[in-house]
Amino acid sequence: MAVRIITFLSDFGGRSPYPAAMKGAAASTASRAVSLLDISHDVPARDIRTAAYLLWSAASAFPPGTVHCAVVDPGVGTARAALAVASGGQWFVGPDNGLLMPAAHRLGPPTVVRLAERRGARASATFHGRDVFAPAAARLASGIALEALGDPAEAPVDLVFPAGRRVGSVLEGEILWVDPFGNMITTIPGALLGGVPVASTLIVDAGGAELRAVVARTFGDVPPGDGVVLVGSDGVVEVAISCGSAAAALGAASGAPVRLRPA
Amino acid sequence: MAVRIITFLSDFGGRSPYPAAMKGAAASTASRAVSLLDISHDVPARDIRTAAYLLWSAASAFPPGTVHCAVVDPGVGTARAALAVASGGQWFVGPDNGLLMPAAHRLGPPTVVRLAERRGARASATFHGRDVFAPAAARLASGIALEALGDPAEAPVDLVFPAGRRVGSVLEGEILWVDPFGNMITTIPGALLGGVPVASTLIVDAGGAELRAVVARTFGDVPPGDGVVLVGSDGVVEVAISCGSAAAALGAASGAPVRLRPA
Amino acid sequence: MAVRIITFLSDFGGRSPYPAAMKGAAASTASRAVSLLDISHDVPARDIRTAAYLLWSAASAFPPGTVHCAVVDPGVGTARAALAVASGGQWFVGPDNGLLMPAAHRLGPPTVVRLAERRGARASATFHGRDVFAPAAARLASGIALEALGDPAEAPVDLVFPAGRRVGSVLEGEILWVDPFGNMITTIPGALLGGVPVASTLIVDAGGAELRAVVARTFGDVPPGDGVVLVGSDGVVEVAISCGSAAAALGAASGAPVRLRPA
Repeated sequence: MAVRIITFLSDFGGRSPYPAAMKGAAASTASRAVSLLDISHDVPARDIRTAAYLLWSAASAFPPGTVHCAVVDPGVGTARAALAVASGGQWFVGPDNGLLMPAAHRLGPPTVVRLAERRGARASATFHGRDVFAPAAARLASGIALEALGDPAEAPVDLVFPAGRRVGSVLEGEILWVDPFGNMITTIPGALLGGVPVASTLIVDAGGAELRAVVARTFGDVPPGDGVVLVGSDGVVEVAISCGSAAAALGAASGAPVRLRPA
Repeated sequence: MAVRIITFLSDFGGRSPYPAAMKGAAASTASRAVSLLDISHDVPARDIRTAAYLLWSAASAFPPGTVHCAVVDPGVGTARAALAVASGGQWFVGPDNGLLMPAAHRLGPPTVVRLAERRGARASATFHGRDVFAPAAARLASGIALEALGDPAEAPVDLVFPAGRRVGSVLEGEILWVDPFGNMITTIPGALLGGVPVASTLIVDAGGAELRAVVARTFGDVPPGDGVVLVGSDGVVEVAISCGSAAAALGAASGAPVRLRPA
Repeated sequence: MAVRIITFLSDFGGRSPYPAAMKGAAASTASRAVSLLDISHDVPARDIRTAAYLLWSAASAFPPGTVHCAVVDPGVGTARAALAVASGGQWFVGPDNGLLMPAAHRLGPPTVVRLAERRGARASATFHGRDVFAPAAARLASGIALEALGDPAEAPVDLVFPAGRRVGSVLEGEILWVDPFGNMITTIPGALLGGVPVASTLIVDAGGAELRAVVARTFGDVPPGDGVVLVGSDGVVEVAISCGSAAAALGAASGAPVRLRPA
């Protein structure tokens, strides 16, 4: 009997008891052995887009059978629906606010159900992570079929990362996320960098400043302190400074427009 | 054979090697499969009361058979006792400084033993988390009886959260904890809010400032930026600002008095 | 069938998706049940020495059969080798930059192989944690022999913590790490403190300041606010302030020289 994985992602904060409470609720519900892992609980408060990015980035590394329980949920307890989604052999559980959809679409065509109310007398109106989503994730991990959890969702809220594009010799997009090293992950598909020769120099415009950067395979291909443009581990264009922080140098944050042009 | 869970809670910090060392010691001692989970390791240094709150909040979500290893232990290596506690089908292991008791009392009448010294030659005087508590937790998770770990503790140190109360039309208590959203969890039992109609406006006095807040079921029942008073997921009164931070607005921290009165 | 443990250590940051992606890749590769634990992901960016210290400190608590996947890797994707190391019944996987070696040497004489390239078409040049190291760790945890992963490494990069020493009545060394309490863990072997009677007063020079400290067994042996010198849980000399921060009081950081002399 293989061990099923349930991952947890939230904006609850690593110093709060809420991530552990979700895991306790999942373990209390599961009828088979589960492995309970974290993606992160340090998403900025109520930042659905950043959470959607993290889930999109992490989920594709997990094996079929994994269930992802993701809760950034400013609408908890209101009329917003609770969803379970199947895609590419994995499942996603969380609020109907777009959070689950980029990851689900990345893995394949998603099937979405709206979780039926099955909360008991002890259920809270403010902590569906513990009282709704983690138990539903545990049921999926225990072998319950998606269809048994609710009826098809008619029009779930979608969230689409804006796609970068090429305009003449210029690549345009926005910053999807700034990682802890200060590397700027953009919305520009890596394929668009395909026509630019390795070792070319580009000018990166972002945050009102500009950075000279060399097209390379990896950070260490340029000297420490130099700018580098590469196709990152998720297949999109990244802008970095070798052994430094591109985001700090440019003063650019997540959501800012970014433009790459020939030097 | 069900997998037993051991949770870990400490003030050791997530950037330290100490939480991992506790898990290694537990895995080295356990004679059956265990699942090793974190509650948090980012408790403020030596803050027994905050750790006791986190344990109290998280433990009730876990299934019977769970062992909680909680170590905020300014008296490590001194004459303070080491305890193991059974309550409501779960176990708690940690120092005799009150940390374990609110959670244990919440689950049922606790049985408390003082851990017999069984440290070997390698045991340290400064890291009982690794050398005393984690091994004891692993023994409990492996099926060793509580009574085999030591003799009954005569008068373990207790820690009781001060209970909030109603005085006429005023609810009085203190702030038990401020969560990462800035929501203020109080010591006022949710039942005391029972007589106040939903949609009533209250004035919240805390931190030398006041906040107008509406009684509701959940955060999203009031517009973003508005104050809200509700019964939170642990059954006590919480004061929040929808999509904002009540603690920041009031300048109030954990331990401060809080008063709710009709507007 | 015992559950094998794989630990993960990196500078990827707990708010990034990269630690979870490593675990997903390990779970996708493993052919048996594995328990996936963290040492820390909050190592300062590119700080190989601090990561080596954390691994050295944590690994010895783990049982035989544990695999440690440690990735602080400024040279990712360049010509630097990828290593797997066997020592004392445990394994270590990571880049050839010294990170693995103090821990490996502590457990016994290490056997080191250079991982053969087996990356598929999907492998990145910038995230070997997910695409090279985690899969290799999972293969070791699944029972694949070290020798099957690659050929012996000729001259792996070593990293040796500078050893403290006694010069007359003075102990000299450097600060290996400052823990989250502000305790200063030094490179001075605990045995060198053996000749100094408990309750002696020493003067600690570090960071351009000095601290009077009493030799003791544990922090609580001296009154709150007093300096204390003791042999810590890893067998080296630590300098602390009871219920306070020695590092803050002295203004001393990791890597600084430290000297202990009779008062």
